[in-house]
Amino acid sequence: MYQEKVMKKVDVWRYKKYEAKVRIVDIYTGKKIILLNEEEAKEHDIYAGYRAGLKHRGHTHVVIVDVSSKLIKPGEVGIFRDLAKAKHLKEGDVVEIVHMDRPASIAYIKKKLDKGVLNKEEIKEIVSDVMRDRLSEIETAAWITAAYINGFSDEEIIALTEATVESGEVLELPGKKKILDKHSIGGVAGNRTTMIIVPIIAAAGLYIPKTSSRSITSAAGTADTMEVLCNVTFSIEELRKIVLKCNGAIAWGGGMNLAPVDDKLIRIRRPLSLDPQGLLLASILAKKKSVGAQYVIIDIPVGRGVKVPYVEKGQELAKHFIRVGKMLNMKIEALITDGSEPIGRGVGPALECIDVFEVLKGRGPSDLRHKSVLMAGKLLELSGKVKKGEGYAVASSILESGKALKKFRQIIELQGGDPKVEPEDIEVGEHSYTFKAKTGGSIFHIDNKAISKIARIAGAPRDKGAGIVLHKMRGDKVRKGDPIFTIYAESEAKLDFAIKALRRLETVEMRKILLNVVE
Amino acid sequence: MYQEKVMKKVDVWRYKKYEAKVRIVDIYTGKKIILLNEEEAKEHDIYAGYRAGLKHRGHTHVVIVDVSSKLIKPGEVGIFRDLAKAKHLKEGDVVEIVHMDRPASIAYIKKKLDKGVLNKEEIKEIVSDVMRDRLSEIETAAWITAAYINGFSDEEIIALTEATVESGEVLELPGKKKILDKHSIGGVAGNRTTMIIVPIIAAAGLYIPKTSSRSITSAAGTADTMEVLCNVTFSIEELRKIVLKCNGAIAWGGGMNLAPVDDKLIRIRRPLSLDPQGLLLASILAKKKSVGAQYVIIDIPVGRGVKVPYVEKGQELAKHFIRVGKMLNMKIEALITDGSEPIGRGVGPALECIDVFEVLKGRGPSDLRHKSVLMAGKLLELSGKVKKGEGYAVASSILESGKALKKFRQIIELQGGDPKVEPEDIEVGEHSYTFKAKTGGSIFHIDNKAISKIARIAGAPRDKGAGIVLHKMRGDKVRKGDPIFTIYAESEAKLDFAIKALRRLETVEMRKILLNVVE
Repeated sequence: MYQEKVMKKVDVWRYKKYEAKVRIVDIYTGKKIILLNEEEAKEHDIYAGYRAGLKHRGHTHVVIVDVSSKLIKPGEVGIFRDLAKAKHLKEGDVVEIVHMDRPASIAYIKKKLDKGVLNKEEIKEIVSDVMRDRLSEIETAAWITAAYINGFSDEEIIALTEATVESGEVLELPGKKKILDKHSIGGVAGNRTTMIIVPIIAAAGLYIPKTSSRSITSAAGTADTMEVLCNVTFSIEELRKIVLKCNGAIAWGGGMNLAPVDDKLIRIRRPLSLDPQGLLLASILAKKKSVGAQYVIIDIPVGRGVKVPYVEKGQELAKHFIRVGKMLNMKIEALITDGSEPIGRGVGPALECIDVFEVLKGRGPSDLRHKSVLMAGKLLELSGKVKKGEGYAVASSILESGKALKKFRQIIELQGGDPKVEPEDIEVGEHSYTFKAKTGGSIFHIDNKAISKIARIAGAPRDKGAGIVLHKMRGDKVRKGDPIFTIYAESEAKLDFAIKALRRLETVEMRKILLNVVE
Repeated sequence: MYQEKVMKKVDVWRYKKYEAKVRIVDIYTGKKIILLNEEEAKEHDIYAGYRAGLKHRGHTHVVIVDVSSKLIKPGEVGIFRDLAKAKHLKEGDVVEIVHMDRPASIAYIKKKLDKGVLNKEEIKEIVSDVMRDRLSEIETAAWITAAYINGFSDEEIIALTEATVESGEVLELPGKKKILDKHSIGGVAGNRTTMIIVPIIAAAGLYIPKTSSRSITSAAGTADTMEVLCNVTFSIEELRKIVLKCNGAIAWGGGMNLAPVDDKLIRIRRPLSLDPQGLLLASILAKKKSVGAQYVIIDIPVGRGVKVPYVEKGQELAKHFIRVGKMLNMKIEALITDGSEPIGRGVGPALECIDVFEVLKGRGPSDLRHKSVLMAGKLLELSGKVKKGEGYAVASSILESGKALKKFRQIIELQGGDPKVEPEDIEVGEHSYTFKAKTGGSIFHIDNKAISKIARIAGAPRDKGAGIVLHKMRGDKVRKGDPIFTIYAESEAKLDFAIKALRRLETVEMRKILLNVVE
């Protein structure tokens, strides 16, 4: 009989180790990397990109190896400043460099590359290794690429969501009130609905502990915009106290330890704009799960230039959210919205803040008001707080009555801002330039990406007062010389950059009825 | 009419730049990386992993950005020692940091992620950007992962091979003689056929300018083994001179600028052992093409524990080689060989060298002699030098006559070694341990990986005299106490490590006819 024996999996390399003297390298790398002498490392079968154990006072820390044949002499190990600090290593300390076998998660990454489906434990192992910096950028990039190409099953997304939640802290609120949340898929300039929805829901007597992101490629994120008025960086305990006092909060998610594995992955995802749908869902849902959300409304803008290009794709994504949410005990509703043009008038932190205030005062851009009330209403219906079909009217009346504004001022105060602030007090950049129509016609398209780019070149979101105010919307008729939008900047130089960029970007497309006269 | 205009692709970021003072960071990174102040970089829309232009004296160098908020102050740029040297940058020099758009190759990588087929220009652009260090490790890893999952078409492989050839220098030989070459897919311990085939072919009057690799995970590569006898590091011009004098050479491929893009990719492929078939083919064929090979024999070992696990997979790979080779004007023949056990007796540079010498002297391990003669014979037939069916006899007679040994000594001399060296002169490790059979029976399997690992732990390939000599082969009958193999090491400590590892690795599987007696 042919007898196949499975070779015992043993880590023979545990016999491979050597002593080295610490040499502190005065750099903060943000990664757990050590530098070894290339030749010496090779003798111990350790290469650049490999993991090694750094044994010091009985503890073995797993690190990624980089090599140098010039800076590090044999018998030395280069320790970067941050690792030295974290592990209390000093110049001249003697440590042991231990050859390590690959972590098990490498095999699971390979399994995903080979179109395999990962089980819960395998996903957890990968997430845990990412969290502990045991995977190199190359390995993590391979995993994300494989996730992008081969996709994740619903079960994998659930496991990933749970592992992501477990990677950080969670917000615990007493069970007296329902916990609501909202999320917008990005890409639409000026789309600052959160700052209107949160006060409406909180005023309606439900919890909405909203954590938001800062901008990555847009002119402002909700966290950047709220920061114009008050602090947004809180610990989870501080967030809890605010929400217990006023039902809602608008905080920066990156400032607390919620689903932190996400931040580790963004560095890898950004260079190629890799947004595998499974990772996107797990990332969003983990953040909602981490604050205990039970009812979640998702805004999926579709159209030219945003992440989701057409309605069918938006519907597919919406159904995916609802299906996975259900398995995670979250009731989710998704709205497919028109995302092809900016929402509101202002684009940039201070300018969007002014729009929000105007809406809360019962004025402001009608598109921003309508969308915010619609979403708040649907969320109220979803939670069972109001009957189906009555959400819009209820949300609208909370807004009209001034209760939402009052709640907004309370949130600002609890977040350390001035509750008496008025839109007129919000400073905008003192340098401005107004772009005017070169011909008459009607506005056919205002480009989100081009508007965001120009606002960023003008200084947004770092310069809070920088950005753009749109004077015209899609469909508006204009005559030659009519102002279309104004760029604001905090410095002359940045305004100049933005004006120069204006010439090379198509921000606004005009349409004329009469294109030509043939004589 | 609905009029969709394509937004002009413009690099608005060219307006985004700032001046910074050079601060030399005393590290050699081997990559084109600069360090920017994190906050300042963010203001200019530059993040870790992004590319930036480093403008100095009218030249703009493309570099990858890393950020630090501690080491680098605003207004500074950290330049690593190697980049400083290459670009003549000194402490305090004022340079311009220019925001750069992504190189076009990023879009092509994304295309491959989306299962697209790349055209010649797109492949060339990626290879050129890898060569110029314009792609980060993350981006390159994504490309290789996508190649692994989505595969390459034959046309893509051709383009990749050509781009790889163009990335380096090529060997030019006069057209008087045919140029032959061979390649073995790795994984088989002791498989040192090259050092026998090259002298046979060269003695037959044909060119065989062989470039070989060093070991990565095995106990010895051909370059490591040949190095026991002479120098193996040559420039292409030096290689050319040797080949013109004696028809053949056995040099280290990594020592010359042949297909250098390959070396850039190995760093990315190693951590996950990613060997996409398309990259493997392009890599091997580019090296053959770079030396001008017209007739190539490929050895594809199959079996337990080697790269190609079974015959059908080997046949598929063989056909792929032949098909793509044809499109590249190379006549290829592939041999599927049994790779499940080591070939020859010695494993490790010096010990394999002794085997080679013994074969060239008409003695030595019969399996190594048979395989080498078989391959040399097939190669002679393939080139048209001898008639079909006569190759083995011709190759065998060149070996028997001593002509191959004479040619081998000539090559050693031209490569700077002692042509009079005898196998007895080759030093092996002075510390040894012989592993003996614990029971009687017959040898059922000798494990390549376990044998290679133990030889490596004993010091191979860095310690040339370290390794293993097998006393028994598969099928041999042994009695309890019979020596099965001997480990050699250059130090007592390394021998001890190897002996310890022996206990935990299954190197040899025994089979008994009588398994048990039931009484």
